Amino acid sequence: MSDHPEAPVAPVEAYEPPYYVAVFSTVRTQEQSGYGETNARMEELVKDIPGFLGMDHAQTPGGLGITVGYFRDAEALAEWRNDAEHRAAQQRGRAEWYRSYTLHVAKVERSHGFTRAQVPPGPAAG
Amino acid sequence: MSDHPEAPVAPVEAYEPPYYVAVFSTVRTQEQSGYGETNARMEELVKDIPGFLGMDHAQTPGGLGITVGYFRDAEALAEWRNDAEHRAAQQRGRAEWYRSYTLHVAKVERSHGFTRAQVPPGPAAG
Repeated sequence: MSDHPEAPVAPVEAYEPPYYVAVFSTVRTQEQSGYGETNARMEELVKDIPGFLGMDHAQTPGGLGITVGYFRDAEALAEWRNDAEHRAAQQRGRAEWYRSYTLHVAKVERSHGFTRAQVPPGPAAG
Repeated sequence: MSDHPEAPVAPVEAYEPPYYVAVFSTVRTQEQSGYGETNARMEELVKDIPGFLGMDHAQTPGGLGITVGYFRDAEALAEWRNDAEHRAAQQRGRAEWYRSYTLHVAKVERSHGFTRAQVPPGPAAG
């Protein structure tokens, strides 16, 4: 159904502001045992938070990882921040998985999205 | 000097709020000619904006890319948004390089960073 069968889904959409974004940027250590399972569990768990809007993630191999979570309001973010299982995962992350990270929590004031029209590949010029 | 010679630098630091973050998440097309040069040029150009604080980027191979730019205030962001060369690059991006993208511009209310203590690798347990 797609001319790019390997292409991922589009990023999380641009919602109508205001909403919240949490930007979590990480450099990982070489000790990653348990990371994948915990990460998958967190991705499931956050979906249960009322007001969770979506999450995008990108990971440069051997480099920076950026996870961006979108939430309807500050209350939704606070519920996620205070989740006991999430807090335990954060603690383990500091102890084992992360060499460094930053978290930026911000209120979205403006957003927009772009999706290109689906057109078949054209012939080469000439 | 490092026990992780391949490790990247840490992500952009957590500044004292308020400041602004622009989250740009992309899925690219298969037509990427000129993208690398333009991207490198934009990374140079944005550094000239007064109030530009830094930029992080992560790219999942064949998947999502996330670029996060940090700016001191709305004026700095507006200057970058209105830069003529930047606008031309955006236009070309929509015409050629991006299958879809979203941009979220947000005012940071809270931030923190973590950097682990530098310790030599320990022996295996047992």
